[in-house]
Amino acid sequence: MYFGSDNQSGASEKVMQALVDANRGVSSSYGTDDWTRNAESALEQVFETKLKVYFVASGTAANCLALSCLAKPWDMILCHAQAHILNDELSAPEFYTGGARLNGLDLDQPKLSASSLAQYLESFEGHVPHTAEPSVLSLTQLSETGSAYTLEELRSLASIAKSHDMKVHMDGARFANALVALDVSPAEMTWRAGVDVLCLGASKNGALAAEAVIFFDMELAAEFELRRKRAGHLLSKGRLLGAQFCAWLDDNHWLDLAGYANQKAETLAIGIDRTSECERVWERGGNEVFALLNDSSMQALREQGAVFSEWPKRFLPKEKQLDSRAFVRLVVSHTTQNEEIDQFCSLLN
Amino acid sequence: MYFGSDNQSGASEKVMQALVDANRGVSSSYGTDDWTRNAESALEQVFETKLKVYFVASGTAANCLALSCLAKPWDMILCHAQAHILNDELSAPEFYTGGARLNGLDLDQPKLSASSLAQYLESFEGHVPHTAEPSVLSLTQLSETGSAYTLEELRSLASIAKSHDMKVHMDGARFANALVALDVSPAEMTWRAGVDVLCLGASKNGALAAEAVIFFDMELAAEFELRRKRAGHLLSKGRLLGAQFCAWLDDNHWLDLAGYANQKAETLAIGIDRTSECERVWERGGNEVFALLNDSSMQALREQGAVFSEWPKRFLPKEKQLDSRAFVRLVVSHTTQNEEIDQFCSLLN
Amino acid sequence: MYFGSDNQSGASEKVMQALVDANRGVSSSYGTDDWTRNAESALEQVFETKLKVYFVASGTAANCLALSCLAKPWDMILCHAQAHILNDELSAPEFYTGGARLNGLDLDQPKLSASSLAQYLESFEGHVPHTAEPSVLSLTQLSETGSAYTLEELRSLASIAKSHDMKVHMDGARFANALVALDVSPAEMTWRAGVDVLCLGASKNGALAAEAVIFFDMELAAEFELRRKRAGHLLSKGRLLGAQFCAWLDDNHWLDLAGYANQKAETLAIGIDRTSECERVWERGGNEVFALLNDSSMQALREQGAVFSEWPKRFLPKEKQLDSRAFVRLVVSHTTQNEEIDQFCSLLN
Amino acid sequence: MYFGSDNQSGASEKVMQALVDANRGVSSSYGTDDWTRNAESALEQVFETKLKVYFVASGTAANCLALSCLAKPWDMILCHAQAHILNDELSAPEFYTGGARLNGLDLDQPKLSASSLAQYLESFEGHVPHTAEPSVLSLTQLSETGSAYTLEELRSLASIAKSHDMKVHMDGARFANALVALDVSPAEMTWRAGVDVLCLGASKNGALAAEAVIFFDMELAAEFELRRKRAGHLLSKGRLLGAQFCAWLDDNHWLDLAGYANQKAETLAIGIDRTSECERVWERGGNEVFALLNDSSMQALREQGAVFSEWPKRFLPKEKQLDSRAFVRLVVSHTTQNEEIDQFCSLLN
Repeated sequence: MYFGSDNQSGASEKVMQALVDANRGVSSSYGTDDWTRNAESALEQVFETKLKVYFVASGTAANCLALSCLAKPWDMILCHAQAHILNDELSAPEFYTGGARLNGLDLDQPKLSASSLAQYLESFEGHVPHTAEPSVLSLTQLSETGSAYTLEELRSLASIAKSHDMKVHMDGARFANALVALDVSPAEMTWRAGVDVLCLGASKNGALAAEAVIFFDMELAAEFELRRKRAGHLLSKGRLLGAQFCAWLDDNHWLDLAGYANQKAETLAIGIDRTSECERVWERGGNEVFALLNDSSMQALREQGAVFSEWPKRFLPKEKQLDSRAFVRLVVSHTTQNEEIDQFCSLLN
Repeated sequence: MYFGSDNQSGASEKVMQALVDANRGVSSSYGTDDWTRNAESALEQVFETKLKVYFVASGTAANCLALSCLAKPWDMILCHAQAHILNDELSAPEFYTGGARLNGLDLDQPKLSASSLAQYLESFEGHVPHTAEPSVLSLTQLSETGSAYTLEELRSLASIAKSHDMKVHMDGARFANALVALDVSPAEMTWRAGVDVLCLGASKNGALAAEAVIFFDMELAAEFELRRKRAGHLLSKGRLLGAQFCAWLDDNHWLDLAGYANQKAETLAIGIDRTSECERVWERGGNEVFALLNDSSMQALREQGAVFSEWPKRFLPKEKQLDSRAFVRLVVSHTTQNEEIDQFCSLLN
Repeated sequence: MYFGSDNQSGASEKVMQALVDANRGVSSSYGTDDWTRNAESALEQVFETKLKVYFVASGTAANCLALSCLAKPWDMILCHAQAHILNDELSAPEFYTGGARLNGLDLDQPKLSASSLAQYLESFEGHVPHTAEPSVLSLTQLSETGSAYTLEELRSLASIAKSHDMKVHMDGARFANALVALDVSPAEMTWRAGVDVLCLGASKNGALAAEAVIFFDMELAAEFELRRKRAGHLLSKGRLLGAQFCAWLDDNHWLDLAGYANQKAETLAIGIDRTSECERVWERGGNEVFALLNDSSMQALREQGAVFSEWPKRFLPKEKQLDSRAFVRLVVSHTTQNEEIDQFCSLLN
Repeated sequence: MYFGSDNQSGASEKVMQALVDANRGVSSSYGTDDWTRNAESALEQVFETKLKVYFVASGTAANCLALSCLAKPWDMILCHAQAHILNDELSAPEFYTGGARLNGLDLDQPKLSASSLAQYLESFEGHVPHTAEPSVLSLTQLSETGSAYTLEELRSLASIAKSHDMKVHMDGARFANALVALDVSPAEMTWRAGVDVLCLGASKNGALAAEAVIFFDMELAAEFELRRKRAGHLLSKGRLLGAQFCAWLDDNHWLDLAGYANQKAETLAIGIDRTSECERVWERGGNEVFALLNDSSMQALREQGAVFSEWPKRFLPKEKQLDSRAFVRLVVSHTTQNEEIDQFCSLLN
């Protein structure tokens, strides 16, 4: 019963095989190989547009390199108060941007709301050169609460940002899960909604270590290659990254993997909903389920070796923060088995 | 009618004369001069303890160099949400610390409360090495709302910080004003209350450009000299700074100046309290008065050339944010004249 | 005929198989997995000592994270003027150290000499806090000229550094090649010679993307985990790195691979030495051969599609910088075939 | 006998009086005052062109803020190997530029020569994105060896830099001394020769603490205000800086001060030249004299309390580095008296 994180599963067999195949023979290095080029083309097809894309091995690197192309060292980056960049990437955003400031809004909401964003920006009064001013909006799709922003919400948020001359970044560590859940196109969920740069994560959904930083606003990419090299994120054997993406995107493999995980997460959610003492928190938007579990359920799960994380209660809606039950995050991956879910649910009450 | 800022007044005559005197002749440079040494001794007497002190010419430099000695680049610095370091020093804190993160609490309160600090720290759950963790508490005395923390409050806040292994920094841009208002000793308001580093500002209270970074915890000063030099804040003619502090501290001159400004601020506050349509906000703790002024008062003041700042309404208590009156800050300095205050008050209604 | 770089070859079959095996099933993330632990133990055995080790995916990351643990932002790092950190890692050393300064010596020598180092340090007169002072010596083994430092040389250089309170870093991107060539033990070539931190590269010698930062002086590692995370170099699926190292070190696989490449490089060197118009430069210490090739040889090689780099002539000994022949670097890898070498040599004259 | 540094003298009486006058009354802060504006106009007249200028209190701040507007964090800055930015500003250049690399040429020459610069640039072979590439040439006028670049030399150096798309920075800590010595116009010695940004120092020549960063290429100034604020170098009482510059420039006061110092330096140089055992090094270009002094002269001077610096012998021409005499720097200022020079010379033999 592994629900610790989707990064605890390995790559899919298809992706691993591609890696083995690509490893044979000699290839030019530093991202000038055929796999990298093919992955670029594949992404242009998937997103139905010309774009600039760069591959790196970690999600933190992808997000923070991307942000460093959008924010000056004296700018402010707005995001949801539960965002990964704010809570799980140490001070990498500051390191990469040279000191830009993160500001998280809507702590007690599952997603950043357009009204909160608008209100913040309208009430913000800076005075140049004394105040760090908002220049980037960073959205996470799936959000860190496992919720998906609807197209309407994305468009609305991006539109507000654009009207204040801000750039829009999307942290897509679980992009595919949101995409499948919303049943929309990659283009609709990104550049057509106003996203300038997407960090498309494959590592959590079937790859070994592969993230794509995709610039729809290609001018913003001007310094990316230098920034990536300066950070030691330009891998010499670039085919490692290119080959993963080629296989991952091929024949909708990425969507199949995400669809599988989402479906299993739905089964898990139903199982929790059927209990009398446990309770789900936030709407499920993909492959994550958040819930309050009572003591006896927790005890039974721990005894049976179930793996999952307790989640900080400061992230709960205010009215639930004093709830005495355990607050947990359950993440389903492309390798989660029905038996794991059945067993998990059978231990709840 | 100048109430724009206490940094719009020049130095006191006594301080200027000291500068003229110190300027004569040859002196060793880079802070190895007699004035600097004498200022150090004077501060040890004033604070009744051994200490390490370094002089710089700006408050932002003082605060941020001090913070860089307390916070690692991956640490979090907690402060009041209206703090100067968060709203008026661009991203200098991040620049100097190499990326530490500021986190402001209690936006709608005039001061950071011990209960908010305690609650934040108790509910904070980080996971090493993923989360920036609080390591420094920065307090502003006078706070940016013009309120003074009482000794009780300071001790309580510092004690909570210490119990979480945090260091305590005090931004004392208007330290003297708070000191006089509370009628306590410099030692009581700092190291005896738990403050590790004080940035003692003279520029806003009678000096031309002089700030002292005072380390009561002297081990924290180990890198200060290198950090100051690296930032270009080691002035070659160090006597410029030393001489200002010598004169400023001499014979309670600094307290006289602050006492004068506080007293005049009290007169101004009384004048506002006597109106029917204007209203003061927050308790006056020193030489600043914040108020909501009605339209006709504002118009009369502007017509007569009164100088003062409108202040961001997002800093107001929530219940006042929709108040249609202008929200203003009025700062009294050591050069403010009775006539200015009388005229100002006479234009209110 | 591929002599472009040893990073243009893939991983060995054994390493790839280990990756495929490790990929199966669920594993805890962020370097807390069994493969990582096993790789740590294997390294302790190989180096015959307790040590602290951290894995990353790129050599630049390894070097610069290591240096950031040794040098303060105001320190100077001394290295050979042809060092990789100085010529091929952009400004990553400065980025990671927060601004430490690189200083390259002995440009026209194949290796940094003890006498040059000693002379530099003895004639260096800094004045605190105005001058960046040498605090780290970085050595590359194999050096960037393909030469190997002898044990005597290493001990002598490290001893000089230590007598000036400097730390010693070794860039071991081709560590195994030097080790095999010198026929010494890993311990002798590192901590017994005075090396504090070794960046042990596997990527160029049979791995896909795997570098180990090994702290023999374990106190220096105190901030490594935080620095790695902050830079986005903590991979979620850490077994990817651990598994590569396990297989690479197992049963002397790494030494076999390096021995193979060195041997083939020797064959190549002999081939060049037999020509009348071409000439080798610098003593071969591992799997790299540097040479001056005449026009007709160059033409024949290019026509047959030989892949290799022309190398900057400013790196040549002064007396050869005006030599009109092409200056080239030839790198042999674990996948280089006899036929490639034979064909290459047959085209020289 | 004070020859330690021109920063050991105070401000001229005229400059001090201007400061006292400007201090009176209330003035708007942060560089929006009349003195600042007047100083800007005065500089436009002096330099016969439109320009953008910003004032700061230290030379290191001026140089490094200027460089941060010219060099990206992955660029290389070329300068003379004895340059102040390389030897006397700690790692401030790296701190401000975010990691750009300094590279010093022509260590054993008194000035950077056009031929060395050209040769370096022509033989430089970088490969994007792996190599830090030269983007800025920084010249010091007076150079750190006390020599002045002729107009011909400046034009030639700047022209080579421009042909390689590099920007040209001038560190003018002793600009006035060079200007008077060469008897040319400020425009000729800067923008007409190809200088993009000049750091014009007044502190060493009659001001208390005042440096102007002057952008002739005004587009390069786009981020200056933000960078200055972020570094804590925006003084609240900006008139302090503006007033110094107004008085300093007024009625050729700055040139008179520099002319005086140069003339006295000439007297000192002649005195040394007349000895049999002492010897001057490098051509005098302004107010500095470098010399080798024999033991008995040194002893006599020290006994009489003469103040001056011994200078690092690694800066000497190679053939003089083993000279057993003391190597000293003697700096003459606007306050140096004839008696001091006479006494100094009388003690030499």
